[in-house]
Amino acid sequence: MPVNEDLRRERARATFDVKQLTHMLDGGSDRTARRRQLQAIIERDPTGIFSNDDNAYLHRTDRHVRGLAKHVRMVELCRTLGIGDKYDGQVVMDPDFPVLLAALADDLPTALHWIMFVPNIVSLCDEEQQRAWLPLCRDWKMIGCYAQTELGHGSNVRALETTATFVSEDQDGTKGGSFVINSPTITSAKFWPGTLGRTANHAMVIARLIDGHGKDQGMHNFLVPLRSMKDHKLLPGVKSGDIGPKIGYNVMDNGFAQFDNVKIPRRNMAMRFAHVDERGRYSKKSVSAAASKISYITMMQVRAHICNEAGKNLAVACTIVTRYSALRRQGYASDGESELQILDYKQQQHRVFPLIAASYCFFFTGKRVMEQLKDIEDKLVSNKSISKAAVTDIHASSSALKSFTTTVAADGIEDCRKACGGHGFLQCSGLPELITTYLQSPTVEGDNQMLPQQVVKVLLKLVQTVQDDGDLSDYVSCDSYGLISSLQSNLKGVKEDCRIVSEIDVMNLDALLAALCHRSARLLVGVASQIQGSISSGKSYQEAWNDALVEMARVSRAYSQFLLLRNFMEGIDGEERSGAIGVAEVTVLQNLARLFALYWMEKELGDFLEDGYVTADHSRWVRSAVLQLLDCIRTDAVSLVDARDFSDFKLKSALGRYDGDVYPAILKAALRDPLNHSDPGPGYEQHLKRLIAGGTGTYKATVSRL
Amino acid sequence: MPVNEDLRRERARATFDVKQLTHMLDGGSDRTARRRQLQAIIERDPTGIFSNDDNAYLHRTDRHVRGLAKHVRMVELCRTLGIGDKYDGQVVMDPDFPVLLAALADDLPTALHWIMFVPNIVSLCDEEQQRAWLPLCRDWKMIGCYAQTELGHGSNVRALETTATFVSEDQDGTKGGSFVINSPTITSAKFWPGTLGRTANHAMVIARLIDGHGKDQGMHNFLVPLRSMKDHKLLPGVKSGDIGPKIGYNVMDNGFAQFDNVKIPRRNMAMRFAHVDERGRYSKKSVSAAASKISYITMMQVRAHICNEAGKNLAVACTIVTRYSALRRQGYASDGESELQILDYKQQQHRVFPLIAASYCFFFTGKRVMEQLKDIEDKLVSNKSISKAAVTDIHASSSALKSFTTTVAADGIEDCRKACGGHGFLQCSGLPELITTYLQSPTVEGDNQMLPQQVVKVLLKLVQTVQDDGDLSDYVSCDSYGLISSLQSNLKGVKEDCRIVSEIDVMNLDALLAALCHRSARLLVGVASQIQGSISSGKSYQEAWNDALVEMARVSRAYSQFLLLRNFMEGIDGEERSGAIGVAEVTVLQNLARLFALYWMEKELGDFLEDGYVTADHSRWVRSAVLQLLDCIRTDAVSLVDARDFSDFKLKSALGRYDGDVYPAILKAALRDPLNHSDPGPGYEQHLKRLIAGGTGTYKATVSRL
Ligand SMILES: Cc1cc2nc3c(=O)[nH]c(=O)nc-3n(C[C@H](O)[C@H](O)[C@H](O)COP(=O)(O)OP(=O)(O)OC[C@H]3O[C@@H](n4cnc5c(N)ncnc54)[C@H](O)[C@@H]3O)c2cc1C
Ligand SMILES: Cc1cc2nc3c(=O)[nH]c(=O)nc-3n(C[C@H](O)[C@H](O)[C@H](O)COP(=O)(O)OP(=O)(O)OC[C@H]3O[C@@H](n4cnc5c(N)ncnc54)[C@H](O)[C@@H]3O)c2cc1C
Repeated sequence: MPVNEDLRRERARATFDVKQLTHMLDGGSDRTARRRQLQAIIERDPTGIFSNDDNAYLHRTDRHVRGLAKHVRMVELCRTLGIGDKYDGQVVMDPDFPVLLAALADDLPTALHWIMFVPNIVSLCDEEQQRAWLPLCRDWKMIGCYAQTELGHGSNVRALETTATFVSEDQDGTKGGSFVINSPTITSAKFWPGTLGRTANHAMVIARLIDGHGKDQGMHNFLVPLRSMKDHKLLPGVKSGDIGPKIGYNVMDNGFAQFDNVKIPRRNMAMRFAHVDERGRYSKKSVSAAASKISYITMMQVRAHICNEAGKNLAVACTIVTRYSALRRQGYASDGESELQILDYKQQQHRVFPLIAASYCFFFTGKRVMEQLKDIEDKLVSNKSISKAAVTDIHASSSALKSFTTTVAADGIEDCRKACGGHGFLQCSGLPELITTYLQSPTVEGDNQMLPQQVVKVLLKLVQTVQDDGDLSDYVSCDSYGLISSLQSNLKGVKEDCRIVSEIDVMNLDALLAALCHRSARLLVGVASQIQGSISSGKSYQEAWNDALVEMARVSRAYSQFLLLRNFMEGIDGEERSGAIGVAEVTVLQNLARLFALYWMEKELGDFLEDGYVTADHSRWVRSAVLQLLDCIRTDAVSLVDARDFSDFKLKSALGRYDGDVYPAILKAALRDPLNHSDPGPGYEQHLKRLIAGGTGTYKATVSRL
Repeated sequence: MPVNEDLRRERARATFDVKQLTHMLDGGSDRTARRRQLQAIIERDPTGIFSNDDNAYLHRTDRHVRGLAKHVRMVELCRTLGIGDKYDGQVVMDPDFPVLLAALADDLPTALHWIMFVPNIVSLCDEEQQRAWLPLCRDWKMIGCYAQTELGHGSNVRALETTATFVSEDQDGTKGGSFVINSPTITSAKFWPGTLGRTANHAMVIARLIDGHGKDQGMHNFLVPLRSMKDHKLLPGVKSGDIGPKIGYNVMDNGFAQFDNVKIPRRNMAMRFAHVDERGRYSKKSVSAAASKISYITMMQVRAHICNEAGKNLAVACTIVTRYSALRRQGYASDGESELQILDYKQQQHRVFPLIAASYCFFFTGKRVMEQLKDIEDKLVSNKSISKAAVTDIHASSSALKSFTTTVAADGIEDCRKACGGHGFLQCSGLPELITTYLQSPTVEGDNQMLPQQVVKVLLKLVQTVQDDGDLSDYVSCDSYGLISSLQSNLKGVKEDCRIVSEIDVMNLDALLAALCHRSARLLVGVASQIQGSISSGKSYQEAWNDALVEMARVSRAYSQFLLLRNFMEGIDGEERSGAIGVAEVTVLQNLARLFALYWMEKELGDFLEDGYVTADHSRWVRSAVLQLLDCIRTDAVSLVDARDFSDFKLKSALGRYDGDVYPAILKAALRDPLNHSDPGPGYEQHLKRLIAGGTGTYKATVSRL
């Protein structure tokens, strides 16, 4: 196909090898090849069911139904292709599976089955339970969801109200005893679980366990059948349905469920770590340290995944806006005749390029955190000791990173949409659904506004240890280890000098990293002393904590930026060392790393000026370095987004097309709208006609006056 | 109805009289009464057509059709009620009309008829033309739109491609001559005009006039009939339809139109300011200065209106999040049993209260700008002289204010949505449609990213005049007059001292205003010297200008904050002097003004630290003052949003209900979703069943292995 002239020119001037970055992002050229192969299978599937062309015109109901059809077809394809065969038929365990999902470029109503339900069985159920349930999951006869949140409680999990009360065989004759699940109040209705509304026939329900002695043993997981596996009818005592339309993610049937004395076998409680016997006696099981931490690691892995996904979603938006900005011409050049590519406006670059930088940055951090987790897992499995510090450290990092990266991605995608001007407001630009669906990420898996408390809780321990001159050896391989030297200076009142001493230093990545480190440590000590100060002035701990929440958000953001830059720098080094990329690629990636750091410094300069770490001179240097970097990156902008190798099928965007033929694509999309299927439009005959032809709006008093 | 206990307690503790603020916001108690009366008419209309209960469940086509039905019913009601009678039957001129529209709490597909089409006839057409067309508009037989933007051009209006070519009677026999309208290329298709797609039968088309000598006379307005007024069929040569689904505003049929030799009478060109005679000779008409500036004033009024609307939309979101946060309890109190209202978390307050402050702030600025414009209009009409400085000054202010207020409102509404946690993701919270529809505001009527260039262009003239010690008398009544003294100091290198000298001063509004003024002036001089510097270093003016775009955005934002605080302070004073509000109301409003200023200073502290105007001490004071103000405002938060007096019908929110009975409302909304109309759901029989009951997903290789 002929490619738009502007885009062709942009591509021709790349200073690096696009393929190398593509392979790096995929994790090797073989994985690039496999990804493309799987994409082709989806995109060219003869049933046509995977087409996303009509998405924006369908009613929600039809979108959902089509989503189910896609799921069924995907399962069929997996069976045909042998995906999952190496994993005993468990399609969802196959590394090809997420690649296939990404290739669909659409949500599936079944998603929580593999995101939460199956992993829960694997990590929290004992072997016998797994043997009973996993084959049903594998064969897609048992389709499950994860039902934790209730109408009244999300973040405060300890306050969930659903109960699971033990009933012994004596009491009701069920062999081996049972649990009765109840939703005692309206606020205790399970509300939000994905896949619950219309799709799942089972739920992993988080409920308050009341044991045989009537004692509340806190939250546990229970496998609750919701619908008959024969005819999908609701089982007695279960009331359930979809929760209604949302700002995005509308293919998914997030659901509600109310339980009225729903009886389940005793052995439907997940029993790997706790147990209730036939007489209703509760006990915790003693398991290896490894086993007990595995489920925790799973949660961390989800966070690392979210971080990587933040980068990918942002990259989709960046691809669309960058390509479009390269071919959109608006505003006269100095000749007064030709028009400029909007990508040449500094302010458009200032909006978009730092987001390209962030999308690459998040990739390296996602990868790094995964590696760290793998390392911990390996140690656990081989029974090597892991310090508590190491485990809480990664909890802090992943909390900070989840909060920051999803905030940047959500704000960034929306800013890309705005940067497309009016056409970004169109569904056919692909950006509206991208952003509205992505907007769940700042809220789920730990609300972004609340996570900083977790981060600070952990980091304050480190501050305490440093202050007490305590033993720091446990921290050696920790992320927060990097802060120690700055913390020491700060706590001892020793002034840290900025390592940017002349204008050229502002491009020095180590100096920038030192600045981000200094700021994190300073703000962290600030929070510690704010809390101490409040308490000394007579406030309760809770009040003091509450007063410090705003500052905690600053600390968490600062800490994330420090980690992200470090991981970016080390990630580039690693790829270079492994030979995955060459000098040209290293250069362009390092410029992105510089821009990432300097952009955020520019945006939050007050944090660096406040204690005199940087001066007015530095501020000028920072601003001018940002402009210089925008110039550098301008040359490679289109190629940097091309390197993600998103297909047009994946982008679903009239503006982001690889060939740049946007205007006919926009018009074509317009004509598809059902509003255009008749002429005059569907509201004329019944309504509009009454005014235009019927005289309903005629002003009667006028006849004489005119 | 019984009101939620938490909300009742909140309301009981208000320190001010809610009614007084309501009347102030409405512009007097009589207007509050009239507003309520009109609201009741809409909300209780026996046809039920105005109900918004089903909005979120309807397909876009049905939403649009229903929108037309609402319009027709509204016109009927106006005729019955005599709305418009005092304006010769022109409903849209009646001050009751916007009140009625606001009461609908929904968009109408006809909106561009009164927002742009009729005003265009009034301001750009001559009397004879008005006499011909306005009665048709009044009777709703002619329904029009404003067609400027094309597929290829939005901001750069000078580059529009649609042509209107004069053809004389000799050439084609049409008496008096005619124009032929053409869309020569795909990018010249009119694209985006609201009401154009399916509703309008006429368009005010902006096209390049080619006169009888073949000379291009630039852009002019032409009234082009699109559809027959008899049967609404497209007229020969016109291709038009809806542009397809958007991120929001989907009731509206934004449309496209392509013209293929569409002939219109010569007198369909708007001829108040320019004229083409029967022989195709083009001339500008000499009109009074007053007349020539009136259309310009209209544009400014639109901006003032946008500013006020930014405040109102933000207030809707604040009402929802504040009420919900007062009754949502999440997280244990120190007793470990009761749970806290989320409104008590400092960070929730830090998100929401500055937005409440902004919503009040924007009200005062909207009002002030309207008064300024009225003043200019009066002077023009009475032939008093108006300096060029005065006209460009208000252009700069309104550009800066449009850009800043709509950015704050768009970001703020979305942040309110996020602050509701998961439930803010539901359409029934009311927030999704509010934000997605509001998102047009940063793009239309001057893209927010581009307006700062207008602002700086004007303000740089002032800098030049000050630098040259020029005559400043023209500036006396200008907004930018306030900057002069700071500009003088800055340009002379005289250090301005911060007027906050001890911690208590940080609550002093005058000192805060001085700080915002200082910052604006400093940044403005910075941009001036950056541009001069670039040029001296050999860059072209265009390059220098481009390099400064990022800084221009900073200047424009800084200048807006200065104007907004000044208008807020003076507005409060004015209301107090007029007796509209008492001491208690003044106190709470002043605290909002303080919070507004301090919140933005805190957010952009670097701007103040950079040149040493404020120090580390000030930073601490600012942060601690913000926390103090959050405490103050906490007491009145619910009452401050109640004072807007939005009805539940208007809020359309399960979370924002006046009675706080949110949980049953959420469940009720869920049950309405068509996905729940059958059980099992609509995708089971055809698709899901194949897996669950049919065995399509069964792993065949397993039988032997298990
Ligand atoms: C698209 C989507 C999919 C979901 N899928 C699932 C699923 O599959 N299964 C499931 O069980 N759940 C699911 N959820 C629910 C999700 O986990 C919750 O929405 C999330 O945990 C937030 O809880 P909440 O909505 O109750 O917010 P709340 O906890 O009520 O929070 C509301 C506000 O209060 C603030 N706040 C609350 N507590 C504190 C505190 N202690 N300190 C400071 N501020 C506080 C928050 O920052 C937030 O601004 C889903 C939600 C969404 C939106
Ligand atoms: C909901 C909605 C309703 C509308 N209603 C109407 C209507 O009734 N009638 C009508 O005629 N039009 C209407 N429009 C069109 C609207 O006026 C345009 O979308 C708007 O003018 C922006 O122009 P654009 O979309 O062409 O963006 P562009 O001008 O293409 O801008 C795209 C990007 O480039 C940047 N950019 C462009 N030029 C410059 C420059 N010189 N310097 C720096 N940056 C630049 C912008 O900041 C933006 O980020 C509507 C649009 C929307 C979204």
